[in-house]
Order: sequence, then structure tokens, then C-alpha cells
Amino acid sequence: MNLQIDSHGRLRHLLTLEGLPRAALEALLDRAQAIIDQGADHAPGLLAGQAVCTLFFEPSTRTRLSFHRAAQRLGADVLNFDASSSSTTKGESAHDTLRTIEAMGVRGFVVRDRAEGAAAELAAVAGEATSIINAGDGRSAHPTQGLLDMLTLRQARGRDFSGLKVLVVGDVRHSRVARSDLHALRILGAGEVRICGPEALLPPPAEMEGIPFAHDLDEAIQGVDVVMMLRLQRERMAEGLVESLEDYHRDYGLTARRLRRAAPDAVVLHPGPMNRGVEIDDEVADGPQSLILRQVANGVPVRMAVLETLLSATGSPSPAPGS
Amino acid sequence: MNLQIDSHGRLRHLLTLEGLPRAALEALLDRAQAIIDQGADHAPGLLAGQAVCTLFFEPSTRTRLSFHRAAQRLGADVLNFDASSSSTTKGESAHDTLRTIEAMGVRGFVVRDRAEGAAAELAAVAGEATSIINAGDGRSAHPTQGLLDMLTLRQARGRDFSGLKVLVVGDVRHSRVARSDLHALRILGAGEVRICGPEALLPPPAEMEGIPFAHDLDEAIQGVDVVMMLRLQRERMAEGLVESLEDYHRDYGLTARRLRRAAPDAVVLHPGPMNRGVEIDDEVADGPQSLILRQVANGVPVRMAVLETLLSATGSPSPAPGS
Amino acid sequence: MNLQIDSHGRLRHLLTLEGLPRAALEALLDRAQAIIDQGADHAPGLLAGQAVCTLFFEPSTRTRLSFHRAAQRLGADVLNFDASSSSTTKGESAHDTLRTIEAMGVRGFVVRDRAEGAAAELAAVAGEATSIINAGDGRSAHPTQGLLDMLTLRQARGRDFSGLKVLVVGDVRHSRVARSDLHALRILGAGEVRICGPEALLPPPAEMEGIPFAHDLDEAIQGVDVVMMLRLQRERMAEGLVESLEDYHRDYGLTARRLRRAAPDAVVLHPGPMNRGVEIDDEVADGPQSLILRQVANGVPVRMAVLETLLSATGSPSPAPGS
Repeated sequence: MNLQIDSHGRLRHLLTLEGLPRAALEALLDRAQAIIDQGADHAPGLLAGQAVCTLFFEPSTRTRLSFHRAAQRLGADVLNFDASSSSTTKGESAHDTLRTIEAMGVRGFVVRDRAEGAAAELAAVAGEATSIINAGDGRSAHPTQGLLDMLTLRQARGRDFSGLKVLVVGDVRHSRVARSDLHALRILGAGEVRICGPEALLPPPAEMEGIPFAHDLDEAIQGVDVVMMLRLQRERMAEGLVESLEDYHRDYGLTARRLRRAAPDAVVLHPGPMNRGVEIDDEVADGPQSLILRQVANGVPVRMAVLETLLSATGSPSPAPGS
Repeated sequence: MNLQIDSHGRLRHLLTLEGLPRAALEALLDRAQAIIDQGADHAPGLLAGQAVCTLFFEPSTRTRLSFHRAAQRLGADVLNFDASSSSTTKGESAHDTLRTIEAMGVRGFVVRDRAEGAAAELAAVAGEATSIINAGDGRSAHPTQGLLDMLTLRQARGRDFSGLKVLVVGDVRHSRVARSDLHALRILGAGEVRICGPEALLPPPAEMEGIPFAHDLDEAIQGVDVVMMLRLQRERMAEGLVESLEDYHRDYGLTARRLRRAAPDAVVLHPGPMNRGVEIDDEVADGPQSLILRQVANGVPVRMAVLETLLSATGSPSPAPGS
Repeated sequence: MNLQIDSHGRLRHLLTLEGLPRAALEALLDRAQAIIDQGADHAPGLLAGQAVCTLFFEPSTRTRLSFHRAAQRLGADVLNFDASSSSTTKGESAHDTLRTIEAMGVRGFVVRDRAEGAAAELAAVAGEATSIINAGDGRSAHPTQGLLDMLTLRQARGRDFSGLKVLVVGDVRHSRVARSDLHALRILGAGEVRICGPEALLPPPAEMEGIPFAHDLDEAIQGVDVVMMLRLQRERMAEGLVESLEDYHRDYGLTARRLRRAAPDAVVLHPGPMNRGVEIDDEVADGPQSLILRQVANGVPVRMAVLETLLSATGSPSPAPGS
């Protein structure tokens, strides 16, 4: 945590939502909403002359493009570091790569890596003027996804989450999206949060922090206001954690029939890319209760808000930790 | 066709030149020529703040760079979707990919795919504000190549094509370039169009639409004004459709000697990349009758004209179909 | 040489530092230093509307990003030509690729290739308005690396190199960086230059041009002011030119102990990426005598100076050869 917030109480890196002061999290959401309300012409040159580097050691098209677009809309130049054709294959460490690109005058780094803690490790050694944004580290955290999910819920249900019943369904054990969502929902005071998934895909008890879980989706979904579906990675079959896609769909797929057990105005989220017909049916994904494309749309202003806050000289100070 | 032109008679997508109203096609050529005449300083910010996404499911450097440059010259940001490292490998459909990038606020998509009809399929499901530009779909169409070829002919021979004898040589069967050229030549009223190539590389008779064909290039080239050479894909050898590169060159290679049988001021086009010494000799490719680099040069303003027409708020309306 | 300087005595391409007039080399260094002194706001739009193409037939992240950032800071658009997914795989020659991208209106090309002389070959056939910048050709030259090394030495030791003792350590035989550094040091009149490395990695005698060499690093490093370390490519093991990384480190690795044999204020350079623990120890790489990150930082203004000089209409004329 201390790594994220500097001695003046300003947000310097965005590595995880865990333990972020509620006011800091809400300031980012407010800023993103303000960018949306101001329209496409918002502050086009706020980061003009600056460069943002996407440092992806694990491929990801949608997240990379969303950050790219966010940086472009702020007037920043974008440098893509493609790990597959890079010096990392020549044995250079990620740390030396960071220092090298920092030395070129780049201050903002968007980092994705298969390893937990990769972004935090870079933040620990980064130069004074550098800001690291975690765009997903292993199964640990994906804070901008958590933020855009919260913004999407706010738009649908208002700023007060205290009356919301939220259900997270699927492979929570391996999901950085789920972790960041659970952190954010806790900070924002969501009324009730439950998890549902097969035994093999639940997180270890120590990680559950008292969140109730269930294996029967038909029961767990009863009366909830928000259903957050997770992507089923196909590796889970090879690892023997899931029998088959058919079994998974039968037990944990969100069908229209199942969704009718939730509250009548329940909304559905999914971080994408979707396995249609596995964890979610077309009828739900493309139905009136789905906010899935709204999530993607919110990704750009959320990332603009994060880039602005971390990189602009006039970024508004975050409240001190604990405030 | 109706997919391309909206209910107000405006060009909304560019999927094929087939059946495009002559006035619409000529408007694009006029616009491209006007951009050239105005020089490099043309409307540098017309698409400022917008983003154009290149969505290439089949690699292509020259076409992608040409669209990239066109978008840059209009002030648009460019997002490259690299199919090889993308969620399509995670099982996401092209349709979901399109919807995802649309949701990021992108309106213009430049699509290339190995499959016929890929761009049209995306246009059929695209959002209301979205424009799809076909940058080549299988053997079906490559409309901006057709447009740049027509612009090149216009610059060399004037706007009236009614007196022109045009010969298309090579693998017409597999060539989207040939199809778009033949469509455009028909719409613009070219005087006479012939095809020449080996039996195995001619299109099926149903597709010929009365275009005369020949197998003997020395005869077919007699007196023509325009020779449009096609690239010989090396796959044709593996498929057994062509015996050898040597045989192909002997029978269908454009040599200086053969070109002398055409009209004295005949011009030569080739869409590139060339197989020098196979379908075309250096002496011709680099000779005074070659317009090959002019074609490439025209590609940028043609694509600027297309992007402008489809994406700018003030794009001039296309005439209604049938006008 | 004549290829680089046009008939008006202006630098047109940058292919090698070998034989460059001292005044031309110093003008580039002066310009780069002026860009640094003016700060980030320097001439942001000097190349606005122009495009620079990176034409890399050999992958290189750091050099490509450095040129990319330099072009961006001058307001130029950047086009990346990715040789791996390009028409070169379809049999198109580098020359046709150059002509094609030239025809799109691009004037500046940054070329990297595994083959010696690749950039010069392109310069020999380039169009009149085109400038080629060699970003590394085989083992031959890497002139912008040579320039940034000289700028780094200037900042540390002043403009007069006549009193400097410089030692180059490692695989000089295969190093384009070493060649460009040796050319520049000769032109700028460095007081004394020595080479040190294993027999198998020394250049052939004909190339040594009287530069003294040694095999014993502990002796060679005595009293030198500048230690320029070279990267050990791991291929050298497979080729049997180096026994093992351990042996190499024992004999030619720059340790803190060895560095103490140099002059007390000696500085250390390395072109990166480093093999830490092989040719250089962490303690040296990250120590107070290391200028390694300064080298990277200088890369951007040096490349801006080169792009400006070659591509801007108002680029200051270089002195005539021999002046």
C-alpha cells in the first residue's frame, strides 16, 4: 500500500485496489465519470509531449488497446514494448528494461505479467518520477478492471452500494479480476457479496476473508442485484480442475432461466473475452440486463482518469492513507 | 450493396466496388485527386480525436501502412489489432472483437481477412455509428486497391475510359484485386476488358460475365492500352495449378518484348508485391511505361478520401443507389 | 562516404561515422546537447506532418523505441515495418519495400539489418528526397550509438578528448558498436585508444589500423579514463569462440576490483542490454562511475538531432568533406 501512495498522500502507482482509501478510489471514479460527462473533447492535450509505455510480458489485446486509446485521448504518445521480440529474450531483466525506457524520458508504464507481484516489483525499483500501473499480474490484481466494474455498477445503481447483493461466479481462485472486484466492493461497502463456483476453483479459505461461498448456482443467485461472471480459462480442463465445458455450463453457466432467479432488475457483468455457451449464454450476454459493453466503454475514461491522476502535474492529490 | 449505402444515400461502409453507383465511385476518385492537388497540408485535423482500428486477421504490411499513413495525415489516432496475439486465439469471435473495440469509442475499422465476406459479416452486425472498410477479404474484393488503380488510370489517360482497351493478366481466379478492378472498369465504362492466364487460374465461367479471355498472352496483349499484371502466389505451385515459375514466366511473364505488342503508349500496373522475373521483368517494372509506384503513391490519398467520406461528420453525401 | 554527404556538402544519410568530417560529427553532438539544454519543449512540431519509418529486419526493442520517441518528440508520425509479418516473406526485396514506402510519402527510414552494408545498399538506390539512417548493420556500424557514446563522454569529460585514454573491452570482432565508437574516437582525436579481449574475439589485423590490443584486462585497464564494455552475445559459446560464461567473467568481466586499477575518476559505458555477472558486475553497472543510463538518455536527443538534420527543410548544412 505505502508503495502506491507517496509521502504527500498522493497516488503514485496503481498496483492493487486492496487497502486503497475509499476517498482515493471514489476520486478516480468521480474523475472518470466527469470525463464521460464532458464528452470526447475532454482535455485533449493534458499529457501532450509525454509518453506512456505499455510493457506487456503477457499478451492482451483488449487491455492494451484500452490503455492505448486512453493515452491517445490525453494527447500522450504511446510506446509499445513487445516482450516477444525484445531484449528480455536476450536475458535482460524486467528491471533493466524499465530503467532503460525510463532513461528515454518515459514516466508512465502500463505493466502486465503472468507473475504475481510483477508490477509491484517494478514499482519498488522505479525512478522517482515514474508511475507504474498494474494491468494484470498473474492471479493477483487487475485494478483498472475493478475500477471500471465499479463505475459500471455506479451508473446502473447509484453511488450507494450498501443495499446491493453481489454474486461473483466462476474461477475466483485464478482470477485477478475477481480479486480486484472483491477489494473494491469491500471498500465501497457493498451490502452483501457471495462467491459461487466449483470446489476446485474456489480460493483457499485464508483468502476468503469471510466471504460466503456456495456450489449451487441456482441457490446462490436467488435475489441478487449484480451477477459478476468470470471467464473460464480453457487451461482448467487440462489441469483437471474442470471436467468438461458441457459440465461447467450445466452447473455454472449463466442462462436466461437462471438469471430469472436473481432480482428482476439484476445486472450482469463479464470482463471479457467471453466464452459464449460456456460461462454465459448469448441470450444473457446480449440481453437487456447485460452491462458487458458498458464495461468496455467505461474502460477508456477510467484509464484516462488513472493516467491523469498519476502523470499530470496538476493531478489532484489523493487523501492520505487512513483518511 | 444496400449494406454499404444507408437510407440517406450516404456511403457508410466500403465493402466492394461491385454495384457501387458510378457517381459514388467518381466522388471518391475526385476527392482523392483533390487531396493530391491540395498537397500535404490537406485538412490535417479533419479526423482529430478519432481513432481508426486496423483489424487484420491476415498479415499485410503495405496495405496496413498505407491506411495507417492515411489516418495519420487526417489527424486520426491509429489502433493496431494484431490478430496473432489477440483474444481470437482465446476463442473470441471477430464479432465480439468488433463490439469490444467499438465500445472503446472507435468508429472506423479497416478489416482484412482470409475469408470471403468477412468484412461484410462485420458490417452486418456493426453498431450504427461504425464504418467498415474492406482491406481485402479472401479472393473476393479489395475495393481501395480498385480505386487507386482507377485513379492511376485517370491520371494517365483522363476521366473518359470509353476508348480504353484493358488487359488483366494472371491469376484472376484467386485475385481480389482483379475482381475489384473488373468491377470498377465496368462501372466507369471501360471500352474493352480482356483477361489472360492459364486455364487453371481463370475464374469459373459463371463469374466471367461475358469478359473475353485468352490463354495466349502474345495475342491478347495486341494493341491494348493498359496491362494490369497480377501477382502469382507461390501457393499455386504447391496446389499443382502452375507447373513452375519458369513455365509461368515463359507463358505469362510481362517482358519488354511482349509489351512492345501493346499500344505504343500502353501503361503497366501491378498491385505489388512483385515477383520480379516471374510475372514481370525488371525492365518493365522499372521502365517508363510502369505506373507501379504511382499506384502506391495514390493509395494514401485514396484511403484518405475513403476515411473522410465514411468518418467525417461533414463527409459529402453519396448519390442514391441507381442515380 | 560520398553517399552520406550530397553535392551541397549536406549530410543526407547517416550510414557510418567512418570518415565523417569532424565538423559534421561535432555539429550533430552540439545539436543534441542544445536539445537537452532546451528541455522537453524543444521544437515539438519541427517534423509535424512527416512520417519516419522504422524498417527493422533484425529485432531490437531499445533502439527502435529510442528512435520512435525521438520522432514523436519532433512531431513526426511513426510507421513500423515489421519484417516478420511482411512481404519480405513473400519474396519482395528490401529495395522494393523501400520504394513502396517511399511512394507513400515517407522520407526518413531507420534501418536495421543482420547484413553488413544493408543500409548503404538502400541509400544507394533511395529516391532523391529520402534519408537512410543506419540503426545497425551486422557487425559493421551503429552510428547513432557511436554518437550517443561521444555525447556521454563529452558531458563527463568536456569537448577535448586529446587527453583521454580509452579502453574497449570484449567482442570487438563482432561489434558494430565498437566499430562506430572507434571511428568516432579517432575523428574526435582521443588521446589513446586500446582494445582488450580474447584472441578469438579480436578483429583481424587488417582492421586494427594500428590500435594496440591486449589480452590481459588487469594490465590493459591500468590508468585508463574510459572503459567501454561490450555485450557478449551468447552465440559466441555455441560458435566455440568463448569457453564458458564463467571463464569469460573471470578474464574479461568488469568487476569493482578491476575498475580500481583504472584512473580514479574513470567512467564506464555499456551499450546494453547487459549480461550482468558476465561482462559486467552489478556493483559496477549500478555504481557511481557508470554512465550506462546516461547513454540511454542521450540516445533520444542524439536521434532527434540526426532526424532534424536529415529531414527538416531547415537542417543546418554540414561542412564539405575534408573541411
